[in-house]
Formats: sequence, structure tokens, C-alpha cells
Amino acid sequence: MRRTVFNEDHEAFRETIRDFIAAEVVPHYDAWEKQGYVPRDFYRKLGELGVFGIEVPEEYGGAGETSFKYNAVITEETARAGVSFGGSGVHTALCLPYLLKYATEEQKRRWLPPFVTGEMMTAIAMTEPGTGSDLAGMKTTAKLSEDGTHYILNGAKTFITGGVQADRVLVCCRTAPPSPQDRRSGISILVVDTGSEGYAVGRSLDKLGLKSSDTAELSFTDVRVPVEDLLGEEGEAFSYLTHNLPQERLGIALGAYAQAAAAVRFAHEYVRERTVFGKPVASFQNTKFVLADCKSDVDAMQAVVDRALEALDAGELTPADAASAKLFTTELAAKVIDKCLQLHGGYGYMREYPISRLYADTRVTRIYGGTSEVMRSIVAKSMGL
Amino acid sequence: MRRTVFNEDHEAFRETIRDFIAAEVVPHYDAWEKQGYVPRDFYRKLGELGVFGIEVPEEYGGAGETSFKYNAVITEETARAGVSFGGSGVHTALCLPYLLKYATEEQKRRWLPPFVTGEMMTAIAMTEPGTGSDLAGMKTTAKLSEDGTHYILNGAKTFITGGVQADRVLVCCRTAPPSPQDRRSGISILVVDTGSEGYAVGRSLDKLGLKSSDTAELSFTDVRVPVEDLLGEEGEAFSYLTHNLPQERLGIALGAYAQAAAAVRFAHEYVRERTVFGKPVASFQNTKFVLADCKSDVDAMQAVVDRALEALDAGELTPADAASAKLFTTELAAKVIDKCLQLHGGYGYMREYPISRLYADTRVTRIYGGTSEVMRSIVAKSMGL
Amino acid sequence: MRRTVFNEDHEAFRETIRDFIAAEVVPHYDAWEKQGYVPRDFYRKLGELGVFGIEVPEEYGGAGETSFKYNAVITEETARAGVSFGGSGVHTALCLPYLLKYATEEQKRRWLPPFVTGEMMTAIAMTEPGTGSDLAGMKTTAKLSEDGTHYILNGAKTFITGGVQADRVLVCCRTAPPSPQDRRSGISILVVDTGSEGYAVGRSLDKLGLKSSDTAELSFTDVRVPVEDLLGEEGEAFSYLTHNLPQERLGIALGAYAQAAAAVRFAHEYVRERTVFGKPVASFQNTKFVLADCKSDVDAMQAVVDRALEALDAGELTPADAASAKLFTTELAAKVIDKCLQLHGGYGYMREYPISRLYADTRVTRIYGGTSEVMRSIVAKSMGL
Amino acid sequence: MRRTVFNEDHEAFRETIRDFIAAEVVPHYDAWEKQGYVPRDFYRKLGELGVFGIEVPEEYGGAGETSFKYNAVITEETARAGVSFGGSGVHTALCLPYLLKYATEEQKRRWLPPFVTGEMMTAIAMTEPGTGSDLAGMKTTAKLSEDGTHYILNGAKTFITGGVQADRVLVCCRTAPPSPQDRRSGISILVVDTGSEGYAVGRSLDKLGLKSSDTAELSFTDVRVPVEDLLGEEGEAFSYLTHNLPQERLGIALGAYAQAAAAVRFAHEYVRERTVFGKPVASFQNTKFVLADCKSDVDAMQAVVDRALEALDAGELTPADAASAKLFTTELAAKVIDKCLQLHGGYGYMREYPISRLYADTRVTRIYGGTSEVMRSIVAKSMGL
Repeated sequence: MRRTVFNEDHEAFRETIRDFIAAEVVPHYDAWEKQGYVPRDFYRKLGELGVFGIEVPEEYGGAGETSFKYNAVITEETARAGVSFGGSGVHTALCLPYLLKYATEEQKRRWLPPFVTGEMMTAIAMTEPGTGSDLAGMKTTAKLSEDGTHYILNGAKTFITGGVQADRVLVCCRTAPPSPQDRRSGISILVVDTGSEGYAVGRSLDKLGLKSSDTAELSFTDVRVPVEDLLGEEGEAFSYLTHNLPQERLGIALGAYAQAAAAVRFAHEYVRERTVFGKPVASFQNTKFVLADCKSDVDAMQAVVDRALEALDAGELTPADAASAKLFTTELAAKVIDKCLQLHGGYGYMREYPISRLYADTRVTRIYGGTSEVMRSIVAKSMGL
Repeated sequence: MRRTVFNEDHEAFRETIRDFIAAEVVPHYDAWEKQGYVPRDFYRKLGELGVFGIEVPEEYGGAGETSFKYNAVITEETARAGVSFGGSGVHTALCLPYLLKYATEEQKRRWLPPFVTGEMMTAIAMTEPGTGSDLAGMKTTAKLSEDGTHYILNGAKTFITGGVQADRVLVCCRTAPPSPQDRRSGISILVVDTGSEGYAVGRSLDKLGLKSSDTAELSFTDVRVPVEDLLGEEGEAFSYLTHNLPQERLGIALGAYAQAAAAVRFAHEYVRERTVFGKPVASFQNTKFVLADCKSDVDAMQAVVDRALEALDAGELTPADAASAKLFTTELAAKVIDKCLQLHGGYGYMREYPISRLYADTRVTRIYGGTSEVMRSIVAKSMGL
Repeated sequence: MRRTVFNEDHEAFRETIRDFIAAEVVPHYDAWEKQGYVPRDFYRKLGELGVFGIEVPEEYGGAGETSFKYNAVITEETARAGVSFGGSGVHTALCLPYLLKYATEEQKRRWLPPFVTGEMMTAIAMTEPGTGSDLAGMKTTAKLSEDGTHYILNGAKTFITGGVQADRVLVCCRTAPPSPQDRRSGISILVVDTGSEGYAVGRSLDKLGLKSSDTAELSFTDVRVPVEDLLGEEGEAFSYLTHNLPQERLGIALGAYAQAAAAVRFAHEYVRERTVFGKPVASFQNTKFVLADCKSDVDAMQAVVDRALEALDAGELTPADAASAKLFTTELAAKVIDKCLQLHGGYGYMREYPISRLYADTRVTRIYGGTSEVMRSIVAKSMGL
Repeated sequence: MRRTVFNEDHEAFRETIRDFIAAEVVPHYDAWEKQGYVPRDFYRKLGELGVFGIEVPEEYGGAGETSFKYNAVITEETARAGVSFGGSGVHTALCLPYLLKYATEEQKRRWLPPFVTGEMMTAIAMTEPGTGSDLAGMKTTAKLSEDGTHYILNGAKTFITGGVQADRVLVCCRTAPPSPQDRRSGISILVVDTGSEGYAVGRSLDKLGLKSSDTAELSFTDVRVPVEDLLGEEGEAFSYLTHNLPQERLGIALGAYAQAAAAVRFAHEYVRERTVFGKPVASFQNTKFVLADCKSDVDAMQAVVDRALEALDAGELTPADAASAKLFTTELAAKVIDKCLQLHGGYGYMREYPISRLYADTRVTRIYGGTSEVMRSIVAKSMGL
């Protein structure tokens, strides 16, 4: 069905991104996956292309775009090619909204220009070993130095995407113990320079998929963070952390939709080229029916994310709507991609085929940004249950 | 999520229909289901309400509305209450498009005014015992009388919804044998007066659900049909039969969506009122998660049908898009309604609870208007498979 | 795969039952379903055939069989033909175990001979309007008369299968209020003569399926029940009610397996006879694959119930094993039967086709004898969760 | 439920294997996965333990065991620990049956003793690039040298598990073109020494899972194979290739069952140890219900494989029964393992957790040894479809 969410500007941007991916990503992607991260100069190229500055105001070197649709285009095009931009999704989709909303004018002038060019890559550190999604239970602390010029940061974080390569990490930490009335109080965000003494990157975690983005453990031992690098109000960060969740979850939903669409595309190509028992795989009724089911599911996912995208741009996307869209698309994408892998037979199990990567990559979409179980809780609560 | 497809006029119409259903349908519905059909005077009431004339031009007594959205409202509101308007869906959704498109001016003057008031109820007879979906294989024949004034109709039809009560039935029949080049040629539609001699209604078929609409077998023994009652061109009807399929299938998709939404509503009510082991059913995590999944699925179905509805009104709904929407919504609605029934425990198995009727009613949506298997074939063909 | 659970005697019994069903049930079954119950004299025929006496000791007129396999054969053969023996499953599978285990010698002499012949049909009344599965919450009371010769029974019950036709109903009731330490104490079973004054049968409940067995509401207004009709110890019945659950649930599992096997058989017949677009339905790859999936599922269900049947006869079937078997088979049977119905196209929706009845009948297996949710709780508890 | 297939000897063997795995495999497994193969001396240890000689007759150094149950024990125990024995499953489960059945007495004396000790590791090469499951279409040829002493082997093979480390590879090849009447004729098996000139191992294929077993492409350029290394009759090998399929497929079914059982075990451990929002994950109803469903599914898989194992040992396991068991268990195991991974949250995505490896490893069971689609075809054919 004709999509109505994208205009000519978006489609022109799509062409640019598609060409860029074909030229700069696809030829190197196997190597990136094997080494476990994207080369640093690739981030510079993304910066030059303008990918990091889309939503950054013009005065700080960006394009000042307020629509999420350009990011949607990037998500769709990377998934379409079965690749990713490494940890850069965290840089723009997770970190940037905090900087835009909570940084002071001084901080923006300091951080956004290198953010836009890719000279300063960012990551965010919330989860700790053993606390999982329960952010209020975090144990990393930051105490003000006696002279009041620095926070002294101690603790450990895990599951930090982009943590190995980041120049600045938004570290969530306790600047005060939880108050008896509100255990969510006392949490702050420090934008930590990763070159600081006492800052250490632990082992890189070996993941099922998302092989081109590094995921690391971090530890902080008496790291001195200037008070100028506190983001927002001290002790108020818990509420910040939930602010951007609808957009983040829609981004994941878009990715899952686009991965499923890509899987159908790869399977479609495969079954038309491949012959078994003297007949193209495409000519079997089972192949047709399976792909038709997948197509119908992808159509539905597209309808869901397109509607949510319009709602987001209109400022109307509620947390429950975003949770519903993430739950629906990520669960269904898993089924579609599994079927498309199966149509590839033994080749589907080989990582050189993009369908195999999609299978491994998509598994995390039901987990990160809030698990499907968390999404169900949010939707149920919105129903008064 | 806020729906954007309906405007104030549609919503005002929705209120009218909702009140009408509460007053005129719900109190009698059990009785109608037990007797197996809707009383004849109820159709008159629907006529008075304007339900049959929405899409009929004003010169024939209708409202001349060209949007399908009013019909969508009716579909949603009947499903919402767990009821139906008996065989009247066939009257407006299946028969009317043929009359509007293929009837001559003379025929429109003759047929449409009583169509609008409900004095002339219509049905359509395509399927024959033993031929199923293969319309080109039909065996009912209509031969021109020697004087050329009448067709002599002979044969039998089955699965005719509204067949018992109809005043006129659009009978598909062979006026010529299939040509060697095209076995679809030679099929015509006669608008047969059910009071004609030789016209007989066979047994009413006992169905799993849809208990308030009669479904009958019909037989024709030398029924004389005036040539003035031929609809469209002689021998050209096969193409007519496919013309309206996208709208018909979207109608079924809308119904499936609305049934699923109604099921969630009924289950939601039930689990909040009902207590087990001293706790409301609603307080169990399983209940919350199941209903959240259902809600998320219903959200997706709504996105699908709303997008298709806009496309239909814009004249852009392709056969493949309609097939995709029908396939997706009817398959998913079945799962949602099954889960909502389960949440009712033993009460879900009792026909007095609307969830039980929804369960039985919805099963046919994967079969009629083209089975899910036919939908998959259509979608696959549109993919070049 | 060759089954090893049945010996020659069981297979001979199977032949007898199969012939009996073909001669005495199938020709009348539509009529029984329409009237909503099985004629009384049919129960006499079952008695003559020996169906009610299989597990009754010889001194009371039965066969003294201790294996559950004969009952398994009956379950399989009725499902195979898409029929049931009305409410007689309750008579033998639910009521008899209580009488065998808890009746005194005097009671056995009084009750078992007419039980075996079918002159005294039995039912059991546990559930009350509004209490559901929470048996300890029941409100029906039985107070000893002043002279100590009778209990005075007051209250209401619902969902009583066979309740309309029963001669004796095992009524669960409170003979004492729950003790503070144990809310399950104080419950007794009275074997109530349905001809007693104050005993009333309310309306028959219209169900989604199981149309040939009546399901009723019962009410008791000062019904005088002789103390000789107390079954087991006063106040101790709660534990009795759980004693037979593994066997009851295995019986339901067996029924679900057998319904699924029957569905495959009916679909197999249908697709080989039926032609669409000039080809047998059986010749489509989709048909083959769907039926192969169903066959593979039925094979698995058979392995599950056969293993459980051996365990039951060996006295080793635990509550958790029975719950696991019921959960697995009833959930899977629903999916298999749904697919087999779909292969019938429009005919699958017509109640004259057994697949349609199987679809409606099987839905209750996930609910009665403990819902799937209750089964999950039992299995989880057995896992230490 | 108590299993009845294993006796005391099997259980003693199980203890041995379990201890061996804990001591010799688990501590090294991460390293083996990273390097992509099992060290050669580990195969020697397996030989010493007797794993390779179980089914080899005593006169060739084996234990002469005829039951498949010891192999079943190994399959269960490796899966239980979330590990594998690298490519040794191919050595014993795929290659050995050919040697036992088709090797001459001379060949057995030559090959079996080093087979048993692990000095001579074997692999089998059937699939070719571009031919997939259509074995009759293979293009690798072996022509008799002019002096009749050697076959000259040319061609290429792919997907060869254990191909990098094997000392002897059973290469399927054409020794004659297909006859017009039977395209399956003309295929032979040569037991090729991998040290031969012209024998080359191509690249190792990077797979989604099964990381500890190498999978390679092989190529043959004028490889001279002594005629003494022809296995069985020249030109008759096609029938050999299907002979062992039921056992091979049951082996895969057993593996899938055991992986699912292991997944439940890992998830069970995880949810009891792990806390979210101050409560153990195990205490949520959703966790309990999901694990109960998984347990019930695993119970069913166990019933299926145990029954099939008895049938295999009794010489009664038909190709259709084996296909049914493989189809059922591999499809269901995928669902169970997916659910168990989800219960691990983000940790489930990390390869250091065995659940993550199980997820990737199990995906191939629906593909190798014949895809689920091939299994459906076999079952359907056995139903007369």
C-alpha cells in the first residue's frame, strides 16, 4: 500500500543513505562484524554525511530537523541492507535527546559541534551488574569533592553499547541516597570524559548478534568529573530517563519492522534464484504461502509504525502506544524473520547470508529498550489493569 | 492511539447506530439467534434508519454517500455489541454494489427505492453444491425462451446467506457454455423474484455461528425470469464478480478487527468484576499480560483497517492490499477472541455470554469472501511468485 | 507408530463400541444435539452394553476391571465418530470414583447395581454461581435436622452436566463453617435424590458445543436428605474432591487427543474427495503440509496420553504429570482441529459436518476439569516455582 | 514422569559422561567456540572413553552394543550442559552406520580400530554448492583410471561438518551418469584419505551457531582414490544414503528435546537466582506460566523420543515415524528455547550464557538431516497424500 508518511525530502534522503550504505558499509560489513566494532573513521563519515546532526539545531552545526522521520529512514535503510551503523544508534537515538533537552547553553556549545561531526562519540550507562531494569536500585555513586569542583565517581556498569569507543558516556549514578518517601530520588547524570583517570573499559561482551557494535562493561574508580559536566539538575535524573522512552521504543519498532521487510526481500530473492529438484523454490505452494503470510505481517507492521510515526511528530505518541507498537512489531518480526531464514535452507544458517544476521540481530529487540514483559505491563496499566 | 479516519459526521452516525442497537437489537438478540433469523420488520426499521440507503444516490431515495466509512461504523458497532443485523450485510455490502454499477436506469428506478426501505431484501447466489470457489465451474443454467422474453433457470445453489427471507436473489448462472478459449465466459446474473414459480428454498443450514442470519440452499426448476431482470451484459458477469472483492474483503477485515476489539472489551469487563480465590481475575499478572497482548494486536488491526479504509475511499485499495488486510486481521482476530474467551473460564462457553458468540461468529471470517488460502495466493501473486 | 498400551481384550472391546456407535448413536446424533440431551433409554442401552459397570466390582453387577484403558477406548471411539455419550462421561468418569472409594458397603449395595444398569444416573454438583474454581468458598449449606435423621440442604449450583436427567446428584456443601485454621474444612458430599421436595432444576444452559449433554443450574430449598446418603466422612470432602483429579484430567487429555485424531481423519477424507479448480484439495502442497503437521502433532499427543495411561494403571500418575498432559493435549488439539476445519472450507462451518462439532466441543477441554491456567499453576508448583 | 527407556547400565554410562563433560568440556568450551573447532586430542579422549566404539563390534575394538540408547544418553548429556562434542556426532551418528553396513571385512579391519580410538576421524560429503537436498543432481565425478586401480575424483562439496579435521571423508560422487530410467543410479561412495594430493579444504563457514564444530567446503582436483576405498557396490549408493535416515533423524529429535530440557533447566536456575524490582523473577506469575508451558512441552517431547527410541531398538521405526518425531520436536524446541532465553532478559543475548548458545545451536535442527518441509512431505506421503 502506498505509504503517506514520507515526503519528497525524506525520499531524497533515503536515496543518499541507500547509496552510502552500498558504497561504504556493505563491502566492509563482514570485517566489521568479525572485529566486533565499526572503525572510528566511519563515524566521521557519518558525521560528514550529516547523520548525527539531523535533530541538532543549526547554531550548533546541525540541520535543526524536528521530525523523527529522517531517523526512521536511516533505520529502514540499514535494516534493508542487513547492516547497522554500529553503536551510532545509541549516539543519536539515546544520547542526543538528553543533551538537547537537559544540557545548558554552555554545555551545548561545548558538546554538540563535536557530537555532530563524530569527533565526540557518546554512549549511555544505566544498567548495573545485578540490578537489571530496576534503575532505582543502582549502586554507582558520585560524591562531591571537598572543594566542590568535582564529583568522585565509583561503581560499575554493564551492557554499554558503544562503550569501548565512546568519548563521553552519560553515566547515571547516585549523588544522594534514596529518600524514604521516594527511592527514585537522588539519581543524576554525569557526562563523563572516557579519558579520565580511573575510568576503565572491562571486557567486551560476546553477543548473539549485533556483532558490529561493541558492548562493554565499564568501571569507575575515583573518577573525577568536573561539576560542569553534570547534566540537568542534581538528583532529578530518574524522571529524565523515562522522558524519551516513547521515541526510543518507536525507533526499535521501526527497526523490527524494517528487519522483517528486509527478511522478506532477501527470502524473495533467494527463492526465485534457487532451484531444488529441478524447480525454483519460489514455485512451491508452501513457499508462496509462507511469503504471503510474511508480506501480510510486514504490511501490518508498516501500518503500525507509520501511524505511530505521525503521532510522534504530532507530539501525541503516548508511552502505552509506543509500548504497544514495540511489543507488536518485535514479536511479529521474530516470527517473520524465522520463516524467511527457513526458506533459505542450510544457507540461512551461514552468517555470510544477511538473513542469518537479521535472525541474530532481531532477537534483542524483544529485550532492549524494555522487554516484551515490560511492554505488556505498560499496556495493561494503560487499560486500568 | 487517536484515530484519524472518522470525522464528526461519522461519529454522530456512530452514536445513532449505537443507541439503535442498544434499544432494538440487544434485547431481542437471543431470541433471534434461537429462531435462526432476524424478523422481517427489523429490516424495515433498518430501512427507516437509513442504513440501506447510505450509498444509494438521492434520486432513488438514498443518501448518496460515496465513502465506505459509514458502513465501517455499522460493522464496528454491531461487533462491539456482539450482535449482527442478520442477513442485511449481504443486502448492502454484497448486493448493492452490483445494482449500483450494473443496473440500467430502468432497473434502478424499479429496484432501488424498495431496496432502501427494506421492502425488497436481496441476496446473492454464487456457490453451488460441489463447486466451491471455482465459479467458472458452475452448472446452473438459464436458457432464453423461444419467444425471447424470459430466461428459463434451472439448477441449485448453496450457502445463500439471507436466502430464506430475500425478495430478490442475484443468481449467477450460465447463459452459454464456456468458450474453449475462456472458461469464464458465458456467465450472467439474473435478479430473480423469489416468488416465481419453480423457485424453492431448501433446508436452512445449521451453522457453527452467525445464528441470527439464515443460510439456505436454493433450487430452480424452470423458473421463468423476464429478460428485463438480467443485470449487466449477458455472458460478461464473471468479471463483475471480482470487481467488488476488495471492498467486500475490507468489510470482512473491519468486522474481524471490530470483533476482536469487542472481545477485549468483554474480557476487560469480566475480569474486573469476577473474583477467584478472593482476588479479582484482573489482578493476576497472566490476565494483565494476556489482555495487553490482545490490546496490542487490536491496535495493529486498527492501524491496518484504517489505512485500508482511507485507501478504499481514495480509490487506491488494490486486490492484494485487501487480501493482505483480510488475511492479517481475520487470522489474528481468531487468536485474540480465543484468548478473551479463555479469560471468561466456564462462562466463556455459554452462549449467553457475547464472547461465546464472537468466538463462533468470527470463525467464518477466515473462510468466506475467499479463504485465507485464497488470500495467500493473491498476495503471493502480487509479489511475483 | 505401533501403540503398545492396548491388548487384544481392549481391541475387541473397541470393535464392540465402534459397532455400537455406528448403529445406535451416529444415526440419531443430529436429533440429540438439536434437543440438547440424549434420550433416557440410550443410557439403559449403555448399561446393557456394560459401559457403566466396567470398573464396578462384580458383586455389585460390574466387570471389576481396574484398568482405565477400557474407558480410554470409549473416549477414543466416541471422539473418532465425532459424537459423545451425552452426560454419561460424568456418570462414570466423575461420579463413580467417589462411590467406589467413599461409599459404605450398605450404600454400594443400594446404589451400584442401578448405577451399572443405567437406572440410576448420577451427576455431581460442585461449582456455584459466583465462586468458580474456589471450592472452599462455596455457600450451599446442609444442616442436620433436630432429630438428626436428615440434612436440610439449601443453596444453588451451576454448570451441572447431566443435571437435568440425573436421578442422584453428588452435592458438595458446607455442613460446617470453615475453621479459622483451614478454610477447606467443613465440606461434605450428599448423594441427593433428585425427586426430593425442594430440589429444582433451573434453566438449561445453552453452550457453544457439547450440545448433546444438558448442562443445568440446580437449586435446593430445604431439601431433606437422609443422613444415610452422606458420602464419606462429614466435613472431610474437600480432600476427596482432589483425589480423582489426575484420572479425570487424563480422561480429558485422552478426549482431546482423540478429537484431534478424528479431525485429521475427517479432513483427510474430505480433501481426497473434494475438488477445487479441477484438482483434488489433497493435491495441493499446502493441504499436504497442514495435514502432515496435524499428523505429527497427533502422534505426539498419542505418545503423551499412552505414557500417562500406563502410569495411571501403575498407580504412578502424579497430579503434575496429569496437569502437564491435559495442558499439552488440549492446547494442541485446539490448533489441530482449527486447521482441519479450515481445510473443509465453507463446509467446516456447517454443523452437519462432524469437524464443526469437534471444533465447538473441544473448546471446553481447555476450561473444564481445571483451566489451562490452573494446569500451569500445578505444573509450576511441581517445579518448585 | 518416570522414564522407562533407560536401564541401570544406561544410567551408569550417563554418570560417566556427565562427569567427563564437567571435567573435560565445560571449562574449555568458550575457547573451543572462539577458535571454531574442538582440539584434536579431545577426540582421542572421547576414543579412550569408549564413545566412538559403542556400536562397533568387539573384534574391531568396540563394545558391540546394538542399542541406540547409549548414543541417546550422550546427546542428552551434551545438550544438558549446553555443549557439544564438536564434529564427533558426524563421526559416530552419520559415518559409522555406513561403515558397519557396507564396508568389507578387509575395510573394517583397516578402518574401525582407528575409528574407535579417534585416530581416524571421519566426515561425510554429500551436499554440493547449488544442488541442496537433490542428491541425484550431484556433479562430483569419479572415473576409473586406465589401469583400473584408482578412481580419479573431481568436484566440490559444501556444508561438510568436521571437514577440516577429518582423516577420511565419505565422498558421494557419480561413477556413472544417471541412466535414463533412473536418475538416482550411478552414485558411489569413496572413503577418501584427506592427505591425498588434490584434496583441498576451502574456507570454514561461519555459522549462526554450532560454533565448536567446523563446517567447510571441500574441493577435489584429480584426487586418486584406490579402488579398495570404494564403499559398497559401485553405482548403488543412492539407496545407502536413505537407509540410515530414521536413526539420524531420531538423533536430531533427541538432541532438540534435550536442548529444550536444558533450556528449561537454565531458565529455572536463572529465575530463582535473579531479582527484579526486589522480587525473584521466579515469583512472577508470568515466569511460572511460561516455564510451566515449557515443561509441559518438554514432557511431550520426551514421550515422543522415548517411544521412538524403543521403536528404533525394536527395528520398527519407520521413515515417516522418524520424520514426524523430528518435525515435532525440532519445531517445538525452537519455541521453548526462545521463551527460556526471554526469561533471561539481556543476559540471554550474551553468548557466555548457555541459553544463548542453545538458541543459536537449535536453529539448525529444523534444517539439517532434512528440513521441516522435507519432513512434512514424508509424513504426508505416508498418509497417502
